[in-house]
Amino acid sequence: MSALPVTRPGGRSERVRQAVLAAADDLADRGDEVTVAALGARSGVSEVTIYRRWRTADNVLLEAAVRDLSRRLPLTPTGNLRRDLTRWAQDAERSLATPRGRRLLAAVARITLSPDGTAQPAARPYLEQRGAEIQQLIDAADPPAQITVPDVLDRVLAPLYLRQLFGYTPASRHPGQLVAELLAST
Amino acid sequence: MSALPVTRPGGRSERVRQAVLAAADDLADRGDEVTVAALGARSGVSEVTIYRRWRTADNVLLEAAVRDLSRRLPLTPTGNLRRDLTRWAQDAERSLATPRGRRLLAAVARITLSPDGTAQPAARPYLEQRGAEIQQLIDAADPPAQITVPDVLDRVLAPLYLRQLFGYTPASRHPGQLVAELLAST
Repeated sequence: MSALPVTRPGGRSERVRQAVLAAADDLADRGDEVTVAALGARSGVSEVTIYRRWRTADNVLLEAAVRDLSRRLPLTPTGNLRRDLTRWAQDAERSLATPRGRRLLAAVARITLSPDGTAQPAARPYLEQRGAEIQQLIDAADPPAQITVPDVLDRVLAPLYLRQLFGYTPASRHPGQLVAELLAST
Repeated sequence: MSALPVTRPGGRSERVRQAVLAAADDLADRGDEVTVAALGARSGVSEVTIYRRWRTADNVLLEAAVRDLSRRLPLTPTGNLRRDLTRWAQDAERSLATPRGRRLLAAVARITLSPDGTAQPAARPYLEQRGAEIQQLIDAADPPAQITVPDVLDRVLAPLYLRQLFGYTPASRHPGQLVAELLAST
């Protein structure tokens, strides 16, 4: 994704952006295919404009996801890391089970696993946002915790993702338990 | 994927199958795009035939992967579960880092996360094969181990997958360590 033009809130460019991102949310929430054509039809913005600004529908979807994650921040951590991470992991599990969450995961996979690698920077803001959420919870932990963002990705988010991808359900080990196991091991 | 016709080894149908699967391996190994057109050009089998039999290039790629996993079996477990799982996880990590491994993961994601869900059964033989590999190692463990296939997926394979998907590298925690942590926790 090329650098976005600077937009004034309320300016035409920003109105176009909001309309297209809202269309992405709508389509993904309904489980509809998110294509440049569908985004154009739903938002009233021309396909050429969408293509010029975002190149692909996946990029629109990721930008909408970053916007939604940013809106939710700050997560108002309580400082109780176990409780905060559990709430965060439950939210991630819920999101992943929705049509939109699955579509977003598919977009991330398509972008980050693209054979030539040129598409990969497009996913970075989304991945950084997810990392920032986790870091925020770790920073607020009282007492301070000895865990890192990769620990949480490996031990809490990764199983939730692979379960969606492979379609298996462990007998137990819900999000709260993944968090408890991680914290017990450090 | 519809049920495959029964094929005699050495029969024409089986020769076609082998040629197309070999073409999928070649293309994926080189990091080329695997499309029905590319498979046709490389294998000499007509696109119509490929389309009729597999419907999508992703399905060809998954069938080639199942064949390759089957060929590698039996994994000749030693009964030392820690050593066997570590070897298996190292192999999974290596595969995931290749163009072909990434392409395969992208195909699984595309199929299992498809919005309407109709494509999902196509990934089942591949996912079952991966589960069977793990079960085989667990069954051979001496002394018997109290872990299950979902445990290994959650704690060993999931981090390896998410690292590829999100592009992060933990400071430590290589495959052998993931296995050691899992076994220590049960």
